[in-house]
Amino acid sequence: MPSNAGEAVFSVDAPRLENAVADIFRGLGLSAEDAAIVGRYLVLADLRGVGTHGISRIAIYTDRLRRGVVRARPEIRVTHPMPAAAHVDGDDGLGFIVARRALEEAIAAAEKYGIGIAGVSNSTHFGMAAGYLLDAVEAGYAAFVFTNASPSMPVWGGRTPFLGTSPFAFGAPGGNGSPPIILDMATSVVARGKIRRAMQKGEAIPTGWALDAEGRQTTDAGRAYEGIVLPLGGPKGSGLSLMMEVLAGVMTGAAFGGQVGDQYRDRDRPQNVGHSIIAFRPELFGDACAYRTRMDDLVERARGCPRLDEDQPILMPGEPEAGRMAERLAHGIPLGEADLAMLAEQAALVGLSIDTNALLKGQ
Amino acid sequence: MPSNAGEAVFSVDAPRLENAVADIFRGLGLSAEDAAIVGRYLVLADLRGVGTHGISRIAIYTDRLRRGVVRARPEIRVTHPMPAAAHVDGDDGLGFIVARRALEEAIAAAEKYGIGIAGVSNSTHFGMAAGYLLDAVEAGYAAFVFTNASPSMPVWGGRTPFLGTSPFAFGAPGGNGSPPIILDMATSVVARGKIRRAMQKGEAIPTGWALDAEGRQTTDAGRAYEGIVLPLGGPKGSGLSLMMEVLAGVMTGAAFGGQVGDQYRDRDRPQNVGHSIIAFRPELFGDACAYRTRMDDLVERARGCPRLDEDQPILMPGEPEAGRMAERLAHGIPLGEADLAMLAEQAALVGLSIDTNALLKGQ
Repeated sequence: MPSNAGEAVFSVDAPRLENAVADIFRGLGLSAEDAAIVGRYLVLADLRGVGTHGISRIAIYTDRLRRGVVRARPEIRVTHPMPAAAHVDGDDGLGFIVARRALEEAIAAAEKYGIGIAGVSNSTHFGMAAGYLLDAVEAGYAAFVFTNASPSMPVWGGRTPFLGTSPFAFGAPGGNGSPPIILDMATSVVARGKIRRAMQKGEAIPTGWALDAEGRQTTDAGRAYEGIVLPLGGPKGSGLSLMMEVLAGVMTGAAFGGQVGDQYRDRDRPQNVGHSIIAFRPELFGDACAYRTRMDDLVERARGCPRLDEDQPILMPGEPEAGRMAERLAHGIPLGEADLAMLAEQAALVGLSIDTNALLKGQ
Repeated sequence: MPSNAGEAVFSVDAPRLENAVADIFRGLGLSAEDAAIVGRYLVLADLRGVGTHGISRIAIYTDRLRRGVVRARPEIRVTHPMPAAAHVDGDDGLGFIVARRALEEAIAAAEKYGIGIAGVSNSTHFGMAAGYLLDAVEAGYAAFVFTNASPSMPVWGGRTPFLGTSPFAFGAPGGNGSPPIILDMATSVVARGKIRRAMQKGEAIPTGWALDAEGRQTTDAGRAYEGIVLPLGGPKGSGLSLMMEVLAGVMTGAAFGGQVGDQYRDRDRPQNVGHSIIAFRPELFGDACAYRTRMDDLVERARGCPRLDEDQPILMPGEPEAGRMAERLAHGIPLGEADLAMLAEQAALVGLSIDTNALLKGQ
């Protein structure tokens, strides 16, 4: 999505965009390998239509790298307190690099023992959780990816930000013809973007979506946007987010309970985000062939259910995003002038000159 | 809760009730040990105020035992396809016995490797998921308890029952002074009981709770009660329930995708419910002392948040139920005449005579 409604939209070629992003991060001191990982995850989010976790975040990541509160060359320390468990101290590296390493550790343990867990401390915002799920399923593994986050949602019964709107993320490989299950959902009722859209349209929002800045229930989208979003299903979303505070914060040694740094507001200190990743072999209890056939059956039966709306196909978690990705790989990622200007500016800041025209699809 | 509003309420002593329930199941051929487990889990649900999963279910369990579609003396088969993974074939035993065994296997693996997983096939309705979470935290472990269930909720986009309203269940030990986290939540918007209550009061229900029997959105509680309940947060609850179909059904060899037997409607065949239980040591990445202190901090900070309603304390997942349990252990479980009559009748069916007066608290 372009940043500003009404401006011209350009179709950007994903591989070229990835390279441009990687160049910017190399310019900030990352190794070529790490910079490529950052480029891949950020562009993957834009490909899947999750623009909030794509290149629109480059400016904050680079600002924090310049300030030294995120380290370009972290010394990631991995220990194995038990055979199927790894602890990863991210040394304030970019979350992409740290979480990716944790996923590799969880998978290595799962390969040997059937299931593995990696706990992470001293990490930073890791972007779109689905990126790690996709890596796991590509390697043939199912995975849970948990993170905590800076406070933006009240605990159930509270009225000030305490919990993160941390995503609950689970992925499992697909069957022979069926797609993987990629469930990556915020634990809030709605994303703040929906409240912003209602505000722009001058529409009311349903009770239960958000509180205003004074902690009162509101249906006024403008007041809600100044306030805080509420947890999904009340105590349920609050409980899921608290669970991630335990898994990703309390257990791992990372910050927790309202103390994870906000990458925008707390620019003078590391975030100390925590993650927990659990990976396991989906064919553990049978064989890979049986698993795939049964997944095909599950998806086929689900798709075959009578529909609420005949014109709306029944889709598996992650399928809408996969469809968008296929479309954008073929026809380009729609970016606005402001996005392209931001890329050129970020490149210039590290002494590079990017010809943004050369990023366009079909050039 | 007594079964019928308006009838007399008796305060029943929990340990005596447990023994009475165990006697009934022994009378149906269960070993003394297994019968005690069933009594404990059922009464635990009533103690915690989860009456839908307590002794009110005895009649269906005993009916299925009599019909032979649930086996009183199952030959539970456990295999270990990988070091930290166990497969449990429940041989159509009562879900309590089978799931309890699976939890033990997951914990045994976690003790050795840090984390363990047990997949279960050929099981039956396992009651309240929180029961197993409580066992896990008592043993010092954190756990996920997943199950699939007979169809009662549409997949997102569908309008007929396909998924179970399977609970998402996670538990973690508490700190030195703080309670454990016991998160046990249905993946539907609301329990059907809430729709029934609205119907009885003649109140409308909010859009989005349920569909009528024709698959149309409805705010009429009566029509909704004849229809089906919708998933929590739309695609989110549907995604969580689908996830459990993969974890508990596709992976384990159990039924899945709409084919788990309904214990009430399909009385002539086994249910083939599946479960997946993952257990791990919460102090994996530090020490037990640090974990407990950090849990205390998390809970204390959460409780200290400014409240939405000054009179409503902020509670952790599972705290309301734990409070109810303490109260009911002290003052008895409120049961109605119909509940006591049911107990006497079930006892009589196995040739026992229960003096229900002797079950009352203070007798």
